[in-house]
Amino acid sequence: MRMDWASGLRGRIAAITGPDPDSRLAGATLEALCDRLLSPASASAKLRTASEIHSRFDRMGDESKRAFLLLLAERYTADPERLALAIARYQLDPGGPQLADLHAASEPRRQQILRRLNEVPGGTAMLLAMRTALLRIGRDAPGLAALDADFAHLFASWFNGGFLALRRLDWSTSGDVLAKLMRYEAVHAIESWEALRARLEPGDRRCYAFFHPTLDADPLIFVEVALTAAIPVSIQDILRTDRAPVEPGSATTAVFYSISNCQEGLRGIPFGGPLIKQVMDLLRRELPALKRAVTLSPLPGFARWLAAQPEEAGLVAALGQQDWHRDAALRQPLTQAAARYLLLAAGRDADPVARFHLGNGARVEQLDWLGDTSAKGLRQSHGMMVNYLYDPAHIDANCRDYAEQGTIAASKRVRQLARTMRMRR
Amino acid sequence: MRMDWASGLRGRIAAITGPDPDSRLAGATLEALCDRLLSPASASAKLRTASEIHSRFDRMGDESKRAFLLLLAERYTADPERLALAIARYQLDPGGPQLADLHAASEPRRQQILRRLNEVPGGTAMLLAMRTALLRIGRDAPGLAALDADFAHLFASWFNGGFLALRRLDWSTSGDVLAKLMRYEAVHAIESWEALRARLEPGDRRCYAFFHPTLDADPLIFVEVALTAAIPVSIQDILRTDRAPVEPGSATTAVFYSISNCQEGLRGIPFGGPLIKQVMDLLRRELPALKRAVTLSPLPGFARWLAAQPEEAGLVAALGQQDWHRDAALRQPLTQAAARYLLLAAGRDADPVARFHLGNGARVEQLDWLGDTSAKGLRQSHGMMVNYLYDPAHIDANCRDYAEQGTIAASKRVRQLARTMRMRR
Amino acid sequence: MRMDWASGLRGRIAAITGPDPDSRLAGATLEALCDRLLSPASASAKLRTASEIHSRFDRMGDESKRAFLLLLAERYTADPERLALAIARYQLDPGGPQLADLHAASEPRRQQILRRLNEVPGGTAMLLAMRTALLRIGRDAPGLAALDADFAHLFASWFNGGFLALRRLDWSTSGDVLAKLMRYEAVHAIESWEALRARLEPGDRRCYAFFHPTLDADPLIFVEVALTAAIPVSIQDILRTDRAPVEPGSATTAVFYSISNCQEGLRGIPFGGPLIKQVMDLLRRELPALKRAVTLSPLPGFARWLAAQPEEAGLVAALGQQDWHRDAALRQPLTQAAARYLLLAAGRDADPVARFHLGNGARVEQLDWLGDTSAKGLRQSHGMMVNYLYDPAHIDANCRDYAEQGTIAASKRVRQLARTMRMRR
Amino acid sequence: MRMDWASGLRGRIAAITGPDPDSRLAGATLEALCDRLLSPASASAKLRTASEIHSRFDRMGDESKRAFLLLLAERYTADPERLALAIARYQLDPGGPQLADLHAASEPRRQQILRRLNEVPGGTAMLLAMRTALLRIGRDAPGLAALDADFAHLFASWFNGGFLALRRLDWSTSGDVLAKLMRYEAVHAIESWEALRARLEPGDRRCYAFFHPTLDADPLIFVEVALTAAIPVSIQDILRTDRAPVEPGSATTAVFYSISNCQEGLRGIPFGGPLIKQVMDLLRRELPALKRAVTLSPLPGFARWLAAQPEEAGLVAALGQQDWHRDAALRQPLTQAAARYLLLAAGRDADPVARFHLGNGARVEQLDWLGDTSAKGLRQSHGMMVNYLYDPAHIDANCRDYAEQGTIAASKRVRQLARTMRMRR
Repeated sequence: MRMDWASGLRGRIAAITGPDPDSRLAGATLEALCDRLLSPASASAKLRTASEIHSRFDRMGDESKRAFLLLLAERYTADPERLALAIARYQLDPGGPQLADLHAASEPRRQQILRRLNEVPGGTAMLLAMRTALLRIGRDAPGLAALDADFAHLFASWFNGGFLALRRLDWSTSGDVLAKLMRYEAVHAIESWEALRARLEPGDRRCYAFFHPTLDADPLIFVEVALTAAIPVSIQDILRTDRAPVEPGSATTAVFYSISNCQEGLRGIPFGGPLIKQVMDLLRRELPALKRAVTLSPLPGFARWLAAQPEEAGLVAALGQQDWHRDAALRQPLTQAAARYLLLAAGRDADPVARFHLGNGARVEQLDWLGDTSAKGLRQSHGMMVNYLYDPAHIDANCRDYAEQGTIAASKRVRQLARTMRMRR
Repeated sequence: MRMDWASGLRGRIAAITGPDPDSRLAGATLEALCDRLLSPASASAKLRTASEIHSRFDRMGDESKRAFLLLLAERYTADPERLALAIARYQLDPGGPQLADLHAASEPRRQQILRRLNEVPGGTAMLLAMRTALLRIGRDAPGLAALDADFAHLFASWFNGGFLALRRLDWSTSGDVLAKLMRYEAVHAIESWEALRARLEPGDRRCYAFFHPTLDADPLIFVEVALTAAIPVSIQDILRTDRAPVEPGSATTAVFYSISNCQEGLRGIPFGGPLIKQVMDLLRRELPALKRAVTLSPLPGFARWLAAQPEEAGLVAALGQQDWHRDAALRQPLTQAAARYLLLAAGRDADPVARFHLGNGARVEQLDWLGDTSAKGLRQSHGMMVNYLYDPAHIDANCRDYAEQGTIAASKRVRQLARTMRMRR
Repeated sequence: MRMDWASGLRGRIAAITGPDPDSRLAGATLEALCDRLLSPASASAKLRTASEIHSRFDRMGDESKRAFLLLLAERYTADPERLALAIARYQLDPGGPQLADLHAASEPRRQQILRRLNEVPGGTAMLLAMRTALLRIGRDAPGLAALDADFAHLFASWFNGGFLALRRLDWSTSGDVLAKLMRYEAVHAIESWEALRARLEPGDRRCYAFFHPTLDADPLIFVEVALTAAIPVSIQDILRTDRAPVEPGSATTAVFYSISNCQEGLRGIPFGGPLIKQVMDLLRRELPALKRAVTLSPLPGFARWLAAQPEEAGLVAALGQQDWHRDAALRQPLTQAAARYLLLAAGRDADPVARFHLGNGARVEQLDWLGDTSAKGLRQSHGMMVNYLYDPAHIDANCRDYAEQGTIAASKRVRQLARTMRMRR
Repeated sequence: MRMDWASGLRGRIAAITGPDPDSRLAGATLEALCDRLLSPASASAKLRTASEIHSRFDRMGDESKRAFLLLLAERYTADPERLALAIARYQLDPGGPQLADLHAASEPRRQQILRRLNEVPGGTAMLLAMRTALLRIGRDAPGLAALDADFAHLFASWFNGGFLALRRLDWSTSGDVLAKLMRYEAVHAIESWEALRARLEPGDRRCYAFFHPTLDADPLIFVEVALTAAIPVSIQDILRTDRAPVEPGSATTAVFYSISNCQEGLRGIPFGGPLIKQVMDLLRRELPALKRAVTLSPLPGFARWLAAQPEEAGLVAALGQQDWHRDAALRQPLTQAAARYLLLAAGRDADPVARFHLGNGARVEQLDWLGDTSAKGLRQSHGMMVNYLYDPAHIDANCRDYAEQGTIAASKRVRQLARTMRMRR
């Protein structure tokens, strides 16, 4: 009974491409079909060929999928002779036309195949599924990595910011989109429709997503926002359903407490930064009383990192005790350790959340002891959470400094916490 | 009072990008702005820079526009040193990663600039305007031709078939879109709103257009269709407003009597073939009684071609007489000359309309004496029109044969007409 | 956190009616406000007065509400003197103008008040809430029954069939409407969103509702439909989620298995018959293979009726046994008793479901032993269900005969079942 | 080729009501059909009967239409015996139920027929057409006036303010609605689509209309608004297309320069007051700089009135001269005469425009010499125009005083103009 979107697409493709006057299609090998896609043909013939490839791929097992991906990777690379000639001509006379010819000759021919596969209605979704399969079953062979780079290159162009539509999701959003929110939420799981409603309907809760014109009811990424009176110190406070809602017009703080990507096939295409930027702009226009935008974020690699620091063995041992979180004496050393983690390790390497926000120009603002007391929160980060601050006046500089020199921006208080720790030693 | 869409876009850009914390932007040179677009920066900084470039370009005179386009063309080509290195590495070991690196190194850096300019909301429309300016004022320098090729390459990817939406335009379509139909109709001018209504509202008239998600109220191309009981022999019959409409369900013939591109900035991107294909499919599903799809098309180069044929001097002289069209004796030789024109000259070179339909797989079906008695019709083609036939069973083969061997498909009758003429000599 | 639609309405009213230049409004008694509504005033003054009444009523406790409803009922009846005069004039000369005057003079003046209260944006929803309050707290006084009749009269006019919009509800319907479906389902409760999805998303399940333009996201009534290969014999089969969906195009039977009214304030306004009719027409056009439309309905008064029949004491005793439903010997007598119930009692009086379907022209088609084994089904009707058949060829005659002579249409088999029973005695 | 909306409705009706199993319908007399509508029947039977009546009426000539309207008027009045009984019972015991019964018995039975005719999809539009026919061909017989009153009563209920939707019309509005604007504009004719565009597209021009849910693309009434920097003194200034548009946010004055009813069938239902009120509220919220709302209105009865005043013979004679409008000496006496006309005659009786605005609570603010130099303006009012001012602080009082005492509100300056004149005599 579950929705089979792929069969929906197939139906749509059949309806658009019409009956097939060319019965040879069904008998052709995949190689022949790909060759056909690259040779001159009518618009119909190209569409029929492309949809035949899609529908075969869709029915394949993983073995056959891998074989097809390898075919693309290995057979449809650049033509070496044409390329050698183009190099020779360019070296003889390095002018514009020769350069253009060299660029064209060095393009793997599979890029053109992928472009043609994208022409079919529903083709974009099928290509996403194709790359998802590639990521799952096949990047071991070197050609497959190159094929993946081709996907990424084309997707970056097709899913560029100018083509994305920002939409607010709320309780009047359609059921199928809401069901996807529940499925894709990756940070703080949504247990039930009532829990979902509690994140969408109250006046002090917002949710925004990017959509792409070809993937109508399928969000690419979404962010959940709480409007609050202060920087929050725990996710429990945010998700509590018995709180009194804040009047949106009087809220001072926008809290981005969850960001989730929805499309595995778009891995590596950066939607998060533009999404945060657009939502901040939009909220600032709508709610003039807003003074700051922060996140409430996990430190997913903290516990692992801490366990690997020999000088923290004592702290780690204390954290192994039953009910350690009732021991107020642990608050300071744990918070200091988290500060060190963020400034020394996380922003560099260990922590994708930190890399994401620092890369977007945020700074480490505040550390929250017992900010996430869920099982996952305790396991990954001993309950610590962190607020990153997005300050429009410093975003550009932070972003540049982090990109060019690896500088990690942090509030004075967090810097002191990190330093204190070191001094004590 | 005329609508200033560009200022609309500017407003939208300003609204999205927010206040500019970085006052250096305003004072920067265009070169500095382009450099900035290529260096690491926050999402906001990139958007602000891109919209600064757009808004400056929009205010420039043609001189400055040409200078900016030359800057893109000449300064932001591929980096020769990086490219030389990539070539050397590829030649040493022609593997996948080296090829990918060579392809990347041979890409003119301006392509990345254009992609970033497209990220801004409204950026696609601005880029179309930029290329329109390029086509108007600047393709003389060699670098500008290469720049134009970059535009065309990116547009072909962004405006690929999978991203286009086919919409029917009718009398309930919005006024601004209808006004654009009137403006862009390039084949048979629409004199008034009443004339427009006569092409949209009757049950036996249809109009379809492709739209792109980023250009909401701006069609890319549209086709006007008449549903008739037979292959029409004159445009006058089609445009007559006092006719009795045919009941659509009983029509046997779909006549494509006008196809017009709307976006100069998309010159060379082929929308016409896919449009005809999709409209044919859609009409066939909706109206099962339809038996054939034909065009009613002009022969824009016929009179010029005829004048240049020494052996046709007698015919040309006769056509110079007052009231020649009342002379029935001219019908046969003129029709035969038109057949020769189409089979010998038009499909090869002289006639973009013929090249378009033959390239899409149609065949020359019928010639129409006095089919277009408008001043333009008489001047360009001595009143002759032609019906091309789109026969699904032969489209693919026609298309391939035309592309590969230049074969021009024609009905037996038209082939006889062309041959007879030659025999008489 | 729950949505406060009334405050939403109040906000909307305030926004529309604008600032109040007439500060006397706040201090006026309800009587004065009602008087004001009946005297000449500007459009603004009338809207402000009406919304003042609405917002006061909305904040009142039940005591005050009852007092206000009594005020409407007793003070704003027809003017006796004007009516006496109109009667006298009519009796003197019973012409058209005198009749019109008599009709006007006999109209309770509160009808005009209610019409003016309806002019406010959101006024219709407020009037529904007012009648809901009346039905809950107040129809004991004779005037209140008359007031209720006025509400019913106006609502019947405002909610007439020409103003209703039939919409399909499916999995792409907005979350707030879906939440209302769950809330209002009165026949077979929907336990969870997954259960709701199972009723909306599969190809062989449909749901349709009537909406009114002034109550946008609030359905008036909805019906759930299953498309099946045969007349179903149990609700368990319909609601099972592990079944293989029937291909809609091949379904022969449309089963209306649940109809629920959503608006208590519209009690007595008949939406059900038109809804079934429109849905049948729509399904018949969409799915030409459909051969019949039936219901799968409860017999809510059956157990109570059976218990009151002295001659059925034996059967009733047997039904009191543990596991009686495993006793196949009970199937025949229980089914026969149900047939008698339907033909003798239910259609007359005891059973609103029977009255509804018979009144719409259906006939009793089939009885389903163990058709509803839920706790409620066993308690109310010993697990029996019934299929009513809507046969377009007989609907009109059935409807008329039932209305005029009380004739209950039934299949031959059901008539035999009922007769057999009697004969055995 | 012109749009036949009625046939569209007929098609819709046929589609909804389905095939007719009851072939007696086609042979029945109109009387039999009306009787059928009043007797119990299934939902389908009622809908089929109603649509049969509609489609017959639609095909009738005026003679037959009149006969049908007379049938409604005379045969379907109240039942005299039932009414006599209800009167007797009421007089015996004037309680609530007896009053309700009297009110029901005095209702002409045709009202129920009209309600049932409204149940059909598209029925409302058909009833409007029926009343339009009645207004055109038939109100001479007394029964027809009563029938017209029934139409008006029902329409007032169905088209009440709560059911109307205010929509802005602009250049993105659909072509069919725009075509209706051109057709219905009754004050200052719109010559061409370019002229229409000039009233819709510039930022300082607005147009708003009321729509009813059952008449989707058919506005009921619309108003055209200019945003200006001062009270305008001529319609020429408003309609000029070469002016520099005012930036909307800096406009101080909203000028209602044209209001047109669109539905003859709704004659007498007052939409104008609520439309002006809602538009004023909406503009005030959107444009905080607005300080006042005025009209620029014709004085349609002025010339006729002036000609009938013996003491104005000299002025009238002067106005008969060629080029009188170049004679500045006429400005003062003509303006004074116009002031007298408005304060003494127009607001009372002679001038529907004055009655409309004064009845809505406006006051006479300013008189505009040569405010309308069109042929019509010169003929009807010697070129004079008037600005009525809608001042929220005085609307209610003006409205009440005008309704109750006939007081005509006017600015001090206009009152002086009127007085001066009298004093001079």
